[in-house]
Amino acid sequence: MSFGFRVTHTDGAARTGVLTTAHGDVETPAFMPVGTQGAVKGVTHRDLESLGATIILGNTYHLYLRPGDELIARRGGLHRFIGWTRPILTDSGGYQVFSLADRRTIDDDGAHFRSHLDGSAHTLTPERSADIQARLGSDIAMVLDECLALPATHDAARASMERTLAWAARARARFEAIRAGEAADVTVTNAGQAQFGIVQGGVFGDLREESAERTVGLGFEAYAIGGLSVGESTDEMDEMVARTTARLPADRPRYLMGVGTPRDLVEAVARGVDMFDCVLPTRNARNGQLFTSEGRLNISNRRYAEDDGPPDPACDCYTCRTCSRAYLRHLYMAHEINAATLNTLHNLHFYLDTMRRIREAIVFGRLESFRAGYVGRRQ
Amino acid sequence: MSFGFRVTHTDGAARTGVLTTAHGDVETPAFMPVGTQGAVKGVTHRDLESLGATIILGNTYHLYLRPGDELIARRGGLHRFIGWTRPILTDSGGYQVFSLADRRTIDDDGAHFRSHLDGSAHTLTPERSADIQARLGSDIAMVLDECLALPATHDAARASMERTLAWAARARARFEAIRAGEAADVTVTNAGQAQFGIVQGGVFGDLREESAERTVGLGFEAYAIGGLSVGESTDEMDEMVARTTARLPADRPRYLMGVGTPRDLVEAVARGVDMFDCVLPTRNARNGQLFTSEGRLNISNRRYAEDDGPPDPACDCYTCRTCSRAYLRHLYMAHEINAATLNTLHNLHFYLDTMRRIREAIVFGRLESFRAGYVGRRQ
Repeated sequence: MSFGFRVTHTDGAARTGVLTTAHGDVETPAFMPVGTQGAVKGVTHRDLESLGATIILGNTYHLYLRPGDELIARRGGLHRFIGWTRPILTDSGGYQVFSLADRRTIDDDGAHFRSHLDGSAHTLTPERSADIQARLGSDIAMVLDECLALPATHDAARASMERTLAWAARARARFEAIRAGEAADVTVTNAGQAQFGIVQGGVFGDLREESAERTVGLGFEAYAIGGLSVGESTDEMDEMVARTTARLPADRPRYLMGVGTPRDLVEAVARGVDMFDCVLPTRNARNGQLFTSEGRLNISNRRYAEDDGPPDPACDCYTCRTCSRAYLRHLYMAHEINAATLNTLHNLHFYLDTMRRIREAIVFGRLESFRAGYVGRRQ
Repeated sequence: MSFGFRVTHTDGAARTGVLTTAHGDVETPAFMPVGTQGAVKGVTHRDLESLGATIILGNTYHLYLRPGDELIARRGGLHRFIGWTRPILTDSGGYQVFSLADRRTIDDDGAHFRSHLDGSAHTLTPERSADIQARLGSDIAMVLDECLALPATHDAARASMERTLAWAARARARFEAIRAGEAADVTVTNAGQAQFGIVQGGVFGDLREESAERTVGLGFEAYAIGGLSVGESTDEMDEMVARTTARLPADRPRYLMGVGTPRDLVEAVARGVDMFDCVLPTRNARNGQLFTSEGRLNISNRRYAEDDGPPDPACDCYTCRTCSRAYLRHLYMAHEINAATLNTLHNLHFYLDTMRRIREAIVFGRLESFRAGYVGRRQ
């Protein structure tokens, strides 16, 4: 077993730690840039490494459809295919399938959907998701869970949670069969892969607690919190996170999926979360929105047309050291792809640097004061 | 005067040299990546620098329309606006205006056109082009010339050459007035700017020779060869280059505009050319075509879907060191912007490395054998 985790410092509910994988260590709390199709849009791997990204996320749905998990397995797995030597986490593919709206149906077996690329029919089950991720060879695989649409009644949230738990048990059984070499049709490209369970339960604290306890009972390497940042208030999110982390084992990393804004990260760390992924820094960069120490900045705004200052005066990233707001606005307005690259470099630096500051604050027992400085700034 | 040039080695008609500008030196023969709108599409300035690009080209037409030459002058010039500290050459804007087809008319005064962005009406004259380039503050400005449409009769080519010569005299007069501080409405952002004349004459050797001699008579810092690589055969191009360079002063750099394929570069250097620009490496990269030591490679080809080899086995660029053909094909087919970046890094490396090899071959008196190795490969 290559997977491991140890807590190095604590500060209230927050902690720093080191996650060990078959492809190296990750200092936590950690933010994972999203590399949907085997690339973080707009930045090369060497840029990611110099920004301090130690782990990235790949999307199983996209990679399964194109270029295909079996092709990637023949290349030796996702790491070798894309040339990224550090850890990778893959999602289950469920979130994208659920987002297909009228192109999918869900039943107890799994999700039946049509490809957004060519309309071809596919079925994603807990077992099939585990198989695909085994072929991809990510360091961390996620179980297939049901993504509850909001608003949902308590009954609907419970039913969805039960289905997620049933799927989690099937996903774990399949994962263990693969690990034991009993899945003849699956080429395993990373013998050290770990599998995380996912806590659901909507915005109902009692369901979150029950989901956490029963998911832990199934016995995964670690646990994630799913189904948040989907339209609920930040107060609700913060509460659900707190009630869930309290029921998760302290000696395992906790991963808050698809979250969030810089504020969300700080608040979740303060409640015991160790890992995050989110498209916000990369997607917003491509849409011309920069995260800065002074709040968000929309570079297309006419007021920046003759602004010779850096995007963020407090930032020392490549973009802020070499580009003015006026230049970045010009590149964005002129539809230059360099705008995407330069904005993404900055936003990822901002996120990864925020995580560095958070880790430092925890080590020195200063997370509360760090957090107080953040909340006022509407990040 | 910051501008200078000295020849350091010769090998037949070919030579190596050092071009001195207000923003530093350029070893010649040199290839200039095209940064149309103040950015070389897909690659950051630091990437360009590490690839060994010592001078880039900016397009006056595009920068004049957006963000505007006066805005750039208020920023302190193009270098400061885009954060590129090395030399920049700007074209006159004429080539893009002539490409507007039914959106422009030409007369002895200049070119009247409508913007491709918003349809607004503009006039580009030799004087106005000089003014715009003075505001941009490039290290090398080009005179406005008429771009002859092929095929053209000898009479048409002569008439066009005469117009280009008349415009060149006006451009030089305006340039000298600006330099003398007599153009009150022009903010000069680079006191060391040089101006190159342009030889035209179509595919008629006698006109090329006459154009060269009369352009030299007007007295520019150096001279360019325009109107080639526009549909004539490579034999015609090679001959026009040879007949022109023979009439240009040996102590000034010679710039072959908008050319070309790797073969074209080698052949033109052998005929005494020192500088080149071309969109081929960057544009073809974005269209999935790679220049390699084995010829051109179209990465979308299905045969590369499971090819784990590097794009070019003989290349040591970042892309070839870290990416397989299979991965690059995937990125291209998945419309990832990283495909543009990685392909551009490779193609520019190929071009700039070719120029390094050419310079080395000249220094060691081996250009003929280098050239023999190139011609067979259909580059």
